[in-house]
Amino acid sequence: MSSGWETPIKEELKMVEDEIRRNVQSRHELLTEIALHVINAGGKRIRPGVSLLAYNAVGGEDPSEIVGIAAAFEIIHSATLIHDDINDGGLTRRGRISAYKKYGVERALIAGDFLFVQGFKLGGILGETIVDLIADACTSMAESEILQSEWELDPDTPKEIYLEIIKGKTAKPIEVGAKTGAVLGDGTQDQVEAIGSYGMNLGYAFQIIDDVLDITGNNAKLGKPTGMDFLHGKPNLPLIMGVSNGTDGRIQELFKKRDKTSEEIEELLDMLCESGAVEDTRELAREYADRAVEALSEIPESIYKDAMISLSEVVIEREI
Amino acid sequence: MSSGWETPIKEELKMVEDEIRRNVQSRHELLTEIALHVINAGGKRIRPGVSLLAYNAVGGEDPSEIVGIAAAFEIIHSATLIHDDINDGGLTRRGRISAYKKYGVERALIAGDFLFVQGFKLGGILGETIVDLIADACTSMAESEILQSEWELDPDTPKEIYLEIIKGKTAKPIEVGAKTGAVLGDGTQDQVEAIGSYGMNLGYAFQIIDDVLDITGNNAKLGKPTGMDFLHGKPNLPLIMGVSNGTDGRIQELFKKRDKTSEEIEELLDMLCESGAVEDTRELAREYADRAVEALSEIPESIYKDAMISLSEVVIEREI
Repeated sequence: MSSGWETPIKEELKMVEDEIRRNVQSRHELLTEIALHVINAGGKRIRPGVSLLAYNAVGGEDPSEIVGIAAAFEIIHSATLIHDDINDGGLTRRGRISAYKKYGVERALIAGDFLFVQGFKLGGILGETIVDLIADACTSMAESEILQSEWELDPDTPKEIYLEIIKGKTAKPIEVGAKTGAVLGDGTQDQVEAIGSYGMNLGYAFQIIDDVLDITGNNAKLGKPTGMDFLHGKPNLPLIMGVSNGTDGRIQELFKKRDKTSEEIEELLDMLCESGAVEDTRELAREYADRAVEALSEIPESIYKDAMISLSEVVIEREI
Repeated sequence: MSSGWETPIKEELKMVEDEIRRNVQSRHELLTEIALHVINAGGKRIRPGVSLLAYNAVGGEDPSEIVGIAAAFEIIHSATLIHDDINDGGLTRRGRISAYKKYGVERALIAGDFLFVQGFKLGGILGETIVDLIADACTSMAESEILQSEWELDPDTPKEIYLEIIKGKTAKPIEVGAKTGAVLGDGTQDQVEAIGSYGMNLGYAFQIIDDVLDITGNNAKLGKPTGMDFLHGKPNLPLIMGVSNGTDGRIQELFKKRDKTSEEIEELLDMLCESGAVEDTRELAREYADRAVEALSEIPESIYKDAMISLSEVVIEREI
């Protein structure tokens, strides 16, 4: 992902990295190794980044207040990645072999649980409001995963259901990260809401582009193969757009198949590109990114607000 | 498990049941259904029971203070049961088909994560001390699961390693439940330590007897088949005792086999019973139970202390 948005919080992001590493140390070496396998692979650090920017944008003055919770969000995110890969059979993640493939399902599952606990512990010291926010985000993630599983292989999944799924999976957690930053930075109630709305809309845009990249992305850059959503029968927005753009039913037919060949996946990806579905999807992502920026209208000008606006651009334009 | 120890906290245990159910409600019905599948199957409720008794034994006066956290311990325990069954391929649990068998690995894994979150949320409102205690217990559970996986199929696992495994898996979480009760009941520092020691020793005894029941238990009563530890290559105390009692190497030979037939499992179980290993193991469990009772010497006499002593008996004598 192109850089730039991180510039004003570069030092703080480094502190977050240290905090993450400090908090995934286990007396048991192998557990730390599995945790670091995922964490050291990098990732975009959008979640802690949004928290840090939100904190600074409302005038927070002591970054040490926010570093712990920003680390907690990334640790919890890493936990969900490990568990997601087990569920999806994802073979690579962030360009590396996925944790369960390298260490086995049993150990990866436990390492995910371990990371959840460490994330919660970091959040738990900040009191009931923050605990409730984190729990709310994690609950939404679990709920949307279940909802997604219920619409597996269904090409007629309504757009509203898709939006509900990505709200819980991505938009809500990023909203909570943003809100937490604004709360800890002593923002006014209005600022907390505005920044929450920024996070929510940014999260929608981010996830929609993620789905686009699963179609148009470059495998090597992405660090994971394309077409995974379709392989796993997950209905996403380009698919829903493709179906509603009207075709001869071939998209539905292909998507519904339980065991798709790589040729069938390729055909599906091509059809979605050619039908204009990918372009329509990008258009919607752009709308969410615009809404994210609009939500910031009452936030005072600052390098942090500029970075938040720049991040909304980056999220749309990204190739990884 | 024979009753009696619950009598003085009967009402409070009912409040815990309500609290558990209230906290596993999800906007998403299926998630609640999976959670309740495990929770409604019953279980011994040792963890919340110990917390409630500890709270009352040090003179805690407002049970509503402790009900939430007692529920949290049982919810977190249920989360680990769901994830354990995925890892062990356990087909039945508490007499019911296991969650992952009924709902699939993906949904069960998510439901486990959901329960972890709800448990943490309930604990998180009680402040840093309690959050640290819970996180400590959960971290120990993860660490000991990893340690256990490293000694899979090794019949020469040292007794010390076995004790470390069950400490993290069972003794530490029960210690934390007991300590939390004593802290919230405003016990003195000495009382908190004493009651923690009770919980720790009770936990050892409980887990050792669990291992014995995996050999001698009645499948129908237990709600799960016997011989599961050996089927999954988990070295337990009767095995370690059997090996050290000296045999012609047949125990080791059988245990090491990756795919054991049911005849081989039967042979192993019989050998452990006949070699005196099961009796020696029971003897050690009895020692831990005695230590649990000794730890209570400075705790004032009360019906709650009596119940804690009675529980240590029940744990040893239990058939389920």
